[in-house]
Amino acid sequence: MAVSSVQCTRATVPFPSIGRVFLSNDGSGREIIRKSNSLAVFGSNKKLDNDTKIVTLLDSIKWDEKGLAVAIAQNVDTGAILMQGFVNRDALAMTVSSQKATFYSRSRSTLWTKGETSKNFINVQDIYLDCDRDSIIYLGKPDGPTCHTGSETCYYTSVVDVLEDKQDALNKLALTTLYSLESTILQRKAELENPEMGKASWTKRLLHDKSLLCSKIREEADELCRTLEEDEDKTRTASEMGDVLYHAMVLLALKGVKLEDVLDVLRHRFSRSGIEEKRSRKQQS
Amino acid sequence: MAVSSVQCTRATVPFPSIGRVFLSNDGSGREIIRKSNSLAVFGSNKKLDNDTKIVTLLDSIKWDEKGLAVAIAQNVDTGAILMQGFVNRDALAMTVSSQKATFYSRSRSTLWTKGETSKNFINVQDIYLDCDRDSIIYLGKPDGPTCHTGSETCYYTSVVDVLEDKQDALNKLALTTLYSLESTILQRKAELENPEMGKASWTKRLLHDKSLLCSKIREEADELCRTLEEDEDKTRTASEMGDVLYHAMVLLALKGVKLEDVLDVLRHRFSRSGIEEKRSRKQQS
Repeated sequence: MAVSSVQCTRATVPFPSIGRVFLSNDGSGREIIRKSNSLAVFGSNKKLDNDTKIVTLLDSIKWDEKGLAVAIAQNVDTGAILMQGFVNRDALAMTVSSQKATFYSRSRSTLWTKGETSKNFINVQDIYLDCDRDSIIYLGKPDGPTCHTGSETCYYTSVVDVLEDKQDALNKLALTTLYSLESTILQRKAELENPEMGKASWTKRLLHDKSLLCSKIREEADELCRTLEEDEDKTRTASEMGDVLYHAMVLLALKGVKLEDVLDVLRHRFSRSGIEEKRSRKQQS
Repeated sequence: MAVSSVQCTRATVPFPSIGRVFLSNDGSGREIIRKSNSLAVFGSNKKLDNDTKIVTLLDSIKWDEKGLAVAIAQNVDTGAILMQGFVNRDALAMTVSSQKATFYSRSRSTLWTKGETSKNFINVQDIYLDCDRDSIIYLGKPDGPTCHTGSETCYYTSVVDVLEDKQDALNKLALTTLYSLESTILQRKAELENPEMGKASWTKRLLHDKSLLCSKIREEADELCRTLEEDEDKTRTASEMGDVLYHAMVLLALKGVKLEDVLDVLRHRFSRSGIEEKRSRKQQS
């Protein structure tokens, strides 16, 4: 929330006491980490040399009067907001430790790790705090659909469509631009299999004619390069890159490859050694 | 939240009475829309033929004991989570009507529209409800940085980096894969201008040698096509698409074009007439 200055305020109320986690209460209203636990900072094997680090972190959160903060789970590759819940100190500490998105259930007054029943865990790669430290992002990779309904995310009801009485208003995922485009292309692909569905479209022609599609991809890549070689303006570059993306995504749809798979590849390359380092080595050798 | 069945529960407590909006209270604890207002369903010029539609919608939200629900503002193009706040009935109705992300400030007990001071409004394109209707996404396009600190989003503190005592832990935006890659490329570009910074890398070679970069883009596009033409497996397609994306993004960085600009182009094309329809017309003529 962008409302006030960046303040690290200590919660002034005690948090609910929860049994099953590795934090305990020292009786002063402040939870301490049991000596028997040493937390790994995730993303590395390094152990926390000082457990007070995490206590300091937890102290810096602006917990509400119930000792809670909002936590949003987001797909690290696609950016899709998977679900939103609440966390208390224990849930956040548990997530840091287990790397599985964990929340505090207000209805059941207990911690719950997303996936503990369904096995569709959200594998948290990093956690972000907002400017006034009362809101948290779990940036992670889901093992499967996040929603208990089987939907990829919990957000599948479009208010605009509801108000316009559109069919499927209750079955329309909140998709950002690239995934909305991917969804449209996949819809055209499904229509191809049933010629009575939908109308003629460029996407369908491309899906139907591999040779045309590949010639378009090569042509658009060439046009993108020429915006650099011939020093064309930025808007032309953005437009040609749009063409490259769109046509390449039609190819992905034909091959049954999701954009998310591509991003997964990129993330692994960059987090391991970096595409650039790998290429650099290849180039130098 | 994926915790219970999809239930549309009417809030049983009255909501805070707020003066400046188009909703008023009928004295029964239930707010009604003033007859003088007719709401446009946004995304179209169509007027609501029945104002009860929005009342029905507001009634379907599972407001908490304070009459609030969580609202998350997300960039429709990049998927970046911009900020998170709370809404009451009035704030949500105001957003539907004005298409500017509006929240309820718990500290000031009033509505506030993001951007009313800074002019950095978030132009809402659609609103999504989660499965149990107590959490809302405002999917929109920000006019400028969302955070009051001037940061693009409010989430710029990495817990992992804080725990690892990393520099810049308090200045690291929550970036998903594609934008993390974009950020790395831009960092290499900045390093090029100061040869003492960083080490040699493939990205720097590409940034330095336009001819090499363009030959790589054409080569990778060709390799992507060949995965279709020569019926190679999916993992090869994903890998080649990763190469296309990476090299094309280096070109974007050289030209000073952000991926967000490209997505903006794609969104406008698809929401206006659709890239495919446009191409189709060109093809047919």
